Amino acid sequence: MTDIARLKTDYPWIETPLIVGAPMRLIALADLATEISRAGGIGFIGAGTDVSNLASHLQAAQQLLQNQNTTLPTREGMLPIGVGFINWGVALSETIPIIERYRPAAAWFFAPSSIASLMEWTEKSRNASPETKIWVQIGSVREAVDALNARPDVLVVQGTDAGGHGLVQGASIVSLVPEVDDAVRGIARAAGFEAPVILAAGGIVEGRSAAAALALGASGVVLGTRFLAAKEANIAKGYQDEVVRVNDGGQTTVRTKVYDDLRGTTGWAQTHNARGIINRSFKDALKGLDEAENKRLYEQDMRKGDAGWGAEARMTTYAGAGVGLVRAIAGAGPIVRDVRSQAVKVLEKFTRAAASGKL
Amino acid sequence: MTDIARLKTDYPWIETPLIVGAPMRLIALADLATEISRAGGIGFIGAGTDVSNLASHLQAAQQLLQNQNTTLPTREGMLPIGVGFINWGVALSETIPIIERYRPAAAWFFAPSSIASLMEWTEKSRNASPETKIWVQIGSVREAVDALNARPDVLVVQGTDAGGHGLVQGASIVSLVPEVDDAVRGIARAAGFEAPVILAAGGIVEGRSAAAALALGASGVVLGTRFLAAKEANIAKGYQDEVVRVNDGGQTTVRTKVYDDLRGTTGWAQTHNARGIINRSFKDALKGLDEAENKRLYEQDMRKGDAGWGAEARMTTYAGAGVGLVRAIAGAGPIVRDVRSQAVKVLEKFTRAAASGKL
Repeated sequence: MTDIARLKTDYPWIETPLIVGAPMRLIALADLATEISRAGGIGFIGAGTDVSNLASHLQAAQQLLQNQNTTLPTREGMLPIGVGFINWGVALSETIPIIERYRPAAAWFFAPSSIASLMEWTEKSRNASPETKIWVQIGSVREAVDALNARPDVLVVQGTDAGGHGLVQGASIVSLVPEVDDAVRGIARAAGFEAPVILAAGGIVEGRSAAAALALGASGVVLGTRFLAAKEANIAKGYQDEVVRVNDGGQTTVRTKVYDDLRGTTGWAQTHNARGIINRSFKDALKGLDEAENKRLYEQDMRKGDAGWGAEARMTTYAGAGVGLVRAIAGAGPIVRDVRSQAVKVLEKFTRAAASGKL
Repeated sequence: MTDIARLKTDYPWIETPLIVGAPMRLIALADLATEISRAGGIGFIGAGTDVSNLASHLQAAQQLLQNQNTTLPTREGMLPIGVGFINWGVALSETIPIIERYRPAAAWFFAPSSIASLMEWTEKSRNASPETKIWVQIGSVREAVDALNARPDVLVVQGTDAGGHGLVQGASIVSLVPEVDDAVRGIARAAGFEAPVILAAGGIVEGRSAAAALALGASGVVLGTRFLAAKEANIAKGYQDEVVRVNDGGQTTVRTKVYDDLRGTTGWAQTHNARGIINRSFKDALKGLDEAENKRLYEQDMRKGDAGWGAEARMTTYAGAGVGLVRAIAGAGPIVRDVRSQAVKVLEKFTRAAASGKL
């Protein structure tokens, strides 16, 4: 079975090329996740490091999907969305009963404290809900090879353009996807198991980058930053306006630990930081402003509402390097359909070129 | 005229998709440049910051091309290779007579001290050799827009996976190529001039990444790291062996100023650094080893020949994040033909998928 056929079997409601909504913590909740799946993508709820509200988010998602006139086809009555976890920060024992009860189509694991922990999460999830597919996010060839110990169904290969958290040190999907693909296929073939399906994340915001990811060897793409500008995102208007305003993301975003420090997001390993839009907090930190004072100023801006975001303001605005191509707020459904049809147009352009010998 | 048609008119010997050899300083000389062009690519001599030997390299290239049985078709008897300059470091007055005499098909400008300087270089080159096309390398949307003042024929859009020198802060070609493409086309259309042809550089080492770059909107691709492993590269065996040995380039290479400092390569602006394979020098610098001592140890390794390169050695080994996909030393001609045919295969796969409704 091809990887595309596997995806269509495992998530029967999808259309291809597959567009996935990243499990952005606090931002990707029931509204966004269900809209993405309803448009033929796979939406994720971002549980992150806290599962205390996860059951109610999944309940809400269930309800939203029942309210629709059309029912999405799923395997064995699975919930046609996924849930994303930042594994080092979540209690496995609190999570498993929720997975067992709501049976999401996919559980996305990221940044486990060890490979042993990743294997435990995988085993217990599969025991609790055998049809829930295991997705593992990795940022290097080494991480991909290590993750194979858990026999994931999907590897999400994250490149350095990605917004939010990822490896401090890395490569873009241009280098990473083909090398990971070769490495995991080689190992899987030698060991006689089925290689995971590869999806690409990091810098993909529209049809051209989605088509590029497929050319690199991915079987589908994950978008985060683009969905920050979705109507259904659980996001402040000030944050969303910044995402639409900012251009030239390579220059106006940065990978740093400064924002985590200011927000008191502790617990991330030294190996990880996060990409966000450069603002006054970052510029002050760079100039050597005392961290306590920078934090005080940050907390002051937290009380300003939407005016707390901006190049000269201080609220954290995680976004990827592709942010310059996010130009308008739109519904998540139209975003999924647009990216999918634009990607197909790009690929069909090559079809025409090949037909006329002009590739 | 399409951009592909423009390329075929301006460089009549090429085959598409266009594969270009980056003008790697000290490494890309007459042997490498002519082999790349002979295989239907565009080879470049890397003059870098020093033109004192450029005339003899161009003389050698002329000779090599005359020695071949077949003559490459060029416009008006131009030399069917290009020359790359690191503009802040080169005397314009010494360069122009060489361009006038040897008439390379392209002059590649990178890191000029100002836009005024870029415009002066462009104007004087065009006066000296009207058919020499002007290529400008940029690493951000802002740099691309600024470069339009010189009305370049080609923009080389360099992403962060690239080896050697580039912007400290940036995005991969995934984000950068589409945003630059939109920006320069918008400006060119509004102002009524022809937008430059866009080529992508940074992380492209083989067919999948070459195809991805075309999907992103580039009309051709530039490879540097892959040609480090070309038989015709002017490179030490120790360096070349490292390029073939190293995997997982996102983890084993790093963008840093450490190597320039050790080598005494001064003059680069704070905006630029370079990606190289992590070695003992870098690890020692990270640990806080005194720079003078690190330099002394570096100079000691310079006397070790090929043993001076390696993960525990100290010779600088500039390479891109795609280095893990460079797996063997091969002739430059076979490399060009392989990457081109592999890229076509990737694109034809989509042609078949589109034909069967399975994109």
